[in-house]
Amino acid sequence: MSERVTEVVLTPIAFPDPPLLNAAGIHQPWALRTIVELRCGPDLVGLGETYGDAPHLSLLERAAAAVVGLDPFDLADLYRRVAGAVAGVDAPDRHGLTGGPSPQKSLLRVFAPFGVACLDLQGHLVGRPVWALLGGRARDAVPFSAYLFYKWGSHPGAEPDEWGEALDPAGIVAQARRMVDRYGFTSIKLKGGVFEPEDEVAAIRALRAEFPDHPLRLDPNAAWSVETSLKVAAETEGLLEYLEDPTPTITGMAAVAREAPMPLATNMCVVSFADVPPAFEQRAVGVVLSDHHYWGGLRLAQRLAGICETYDVGLSMHSNSHLGISLAAMTHLGAATPNLTYAADTHTPWQLGVDVLETPLSFVDGAVPVPSGPGLGVSLDRDALARMHEDYLRCGIRERDDTGYLRQFQPDFEALKPRW
Amino acid sequence: MSERVTEVVLTPIAFPDPPLLNAAGIHQPWALRTIVELRCGPDLVGLGETYGDAPHLSLLERAAAAVVGLDPFDLADLYRRVAGAVAGVDAPDRHGLTGGPSPQKSLLRVFAPFGVACLDLQGHLVGRPVWALLGGRARDAVPFSAYLFYKWGSHPGAEPDEWGEALDPAGIVAQARRMVDRYGFTSIKLKGGVFEPEDEVAAIRALRAEFPDHPLRLDPNAAWSVETSLKVAAETEGLLEYLEDPTPTITGMAAVAREAPMPLATNMCVVSFADVPPAFEQRAVGVVLSDHHYWGGLRLAQRLAGICETYDVGLSMHSNSHLGISLAAMTHLGAATPNLTYAADTHTPWQLGVDVLETPLSFVDGAVPVPSGPGLGVSLDRDALARMHEDYLRCGIRERDDTGYLRQFQPDFEALKPRW
Repeated sequence: MSERVTEVVLTPIAFPDPPLLNAAGIHQPWALRTIVELRCGPDLVGLGETYGDAPHLSLLERAAAAVVGLDPFDLADLYRRVAGAVAGVDAPDRHGLTGGPSPQKSLLRVFAPFGVACLDLQGHLVGRPVWALLGGRARDAVPFSAYLFYKWGSHPGAEPDEWGEALDPAGIVAQARRMVDRYGFTSIKLKGGVFEPEDEVAAIRALRAEFPDHPLRLDPNAAWSVETSLKVAAETEGLLEYLEDPTPTITGMAAVAREAPMPLATNMCVVSFADVPPAFEQRAVGVVLSDHHYWGGLRLAQRLAGICETYDVGLSMHSNSHLGISLAAMTHLGAATPNLTYAADTHTPWQLGVDVLETPLSFVDGAVPVPSGPGLGVSLDRDALARMHEDYLRCGIRERDDTGYLRQFQPDFEALKPRW
Repeated sequence: MSERVTEVVLTPIAFPDPPLLNAAGIHQPWALRTIVELRCGPDLVGLGETYGDAPHLSLLERAAAAVVGLDPFDLADLYRRVAGAVAGVDAPDRHGLTGGPSPQKSLLRVFAPFGVACLDLQGHLVGRPVWALLGGRARDAVPFSAYLFYKWGSHPGAEPDEWGEALDPAGIVAQARRMVDRYGFTSIKLKGGVFEPEDEVAAIRALRAEFPDHPLRLDPNAAWSVETSLKVAAETEGLLEYLEDPTPTITGMAAVAREAPMPLATNMCVVSFADVPPAFEQRAVGVVLSDHHYWGGLRLAQRLAGICETYDVGLSMHSNSHLGISLAAMTHLGAATPNLTYAADTHTPWQLGVDVLETPLSFVDGAVPVPSGPGLGVSLDRDALARMHEDYLRCGIRERDDTGYLRQFQPDFEALKPRW
């Protein structure tokens, strides 16, 4: 058993994604991810999962070459290697849902999956779960929220997916009912920014009527002006545990936060450590949605959690379309994060049971029980991985482009921030 | 080999301490520490080192009983156990050199040495150094500074110690020369707050003349008013890399910081996470002196480091009289802390070669090379431990009291903050 990384394998994959609407457009028929394998000799592998967009993949490839020979316990050396490999490069995040790009953010996005894979390797080398390497188990199961989307019944020209259409309050409530019944979620998030704010407030009211005890959240992805945000905030007083990214920029969020009756959450205006001091100083946000995929992996997400605890700011987790390695990493991180003060987001229900894992983690009462086996506690289904790589090669999609895809059907669509 | 803590042994010890002067008084002839041993079965032990004052020792004893059965990888469980054992108790820090007391600070002070011992255990269980468990090695050696003190030539009635008297600039320069020649330190700190500020500025000037290239620091332990601090700051412009705790309180420090030409450092007004937001918001400090003994161990000291990096605040390390387990813990922490932006403090030279270790870590060119063996990389000299425990039993000192000791010889001495 080698204790150095002997080989790095990157596998870009594609998997079916339902037509989920958001402020930027609509999800394409295929979502992309890259599976990162760090091998130590023939028998040991550490896993990571990250974005699959082509610019990101090209940075991952540069980094991969620099990682061979790494001691998987030396994350400081990993950082030096990755930084050297991608120095100064800025891979745009064109879908625009996690703030603007920067070279430092690109570096941390590339560093993250290698760091997760190193922690998985460490866990296998020492026979301990990743949460133990992150400082211990603050909880036995990590709660997630139901993540509702307005959606079409099918991609144009394709068969309807099992979730069906949801374009009004009744459709959203039906979606929520099915998701809650199936997974046991005890809090509910609605992705908004799709319809007139009044319509989305009506959906929140309908959810409250159907689920009187579930904390609710609404996330229009910065589709509203400050004025509209304040109007919605007043209308939803007492209905939302938090309002997520109603409006763009730290300054805009601060203006809303000064008058809104509920905390504001963000994964758009606080997306790197450089955003933290101005946002906290302006009291722009009450909840940060962490995401180890772009904050730089599990340890830097822990740093963010520590900062939030120190500044008495709430903490939840953001999610993009993802598979089971990401869910496992989020679960270990959540297990080791005492101040995860809100249930985390996950897209898992939207992946329709598709995964790259032999045995995906499962939800019990809306939470994922914390694995107790070594490392992340998951292993690759290599047949599934090969199939999904074939799908990647065939699908033709190389960058996420919700806006361009919606424009195929609504040529005048523009992803305005704010729109209303 | 058990992987649960089967036994906890606390050994209070005393070791000779020279008559070092500071704003609170003078070091007593014996310094106290407690050595913490967490045993996993008959052959495996994890080490920690902490304060030896009686109120702290009594809290350690409560916690020790709660730690048996712990999984040493589950620091979250350790925290719960220690918090349960010492809930709400406030052990005063009567020497007054690290800020005021609070129940949370007492808890973190008790938690810290058990956490260090757990990391030492983890390292032995997995065959890796503690720095690897903290995220990797950002440097190969951890730089420390020469820590100069005004001092008497001997404790009254005792033989002179090898360092001799230092009560004026010439004495301080001679002490610095000896310490730099012996250890290779490349930066120098003078503990002030003992004489008139003008006299201490003269000592700084004398050090600059003798050591033109060594960064210098002055630390009067909050003995000065804001006005005096600003006067000294103006007089030492261009001479100091930082001025440490010139005046009490965050507000006082902020007033000095607004006009002082050099950064201000602190281990007195930012001593817990609750102090961070107001201090940073008021721009009161440019450098935080971390100390894992009261910030809650190595992982929480890492959290502090991450906050400092995020807020672009410098970082160094504070020290009280300590032995080699503490030095080893500081070295592993420093190794894993990329943004340790200044050489750390250490009292090691003042302990005159006395230690509880079989083979103490050594200094090369003013820095401690980072150990590569499992855990902290140190082991107890049990004969020395037994002797030092006997000294503890015999010495009669149960709490550090620099003020009371100096009053034995200068009955009118008062530890005023500020004095000048």
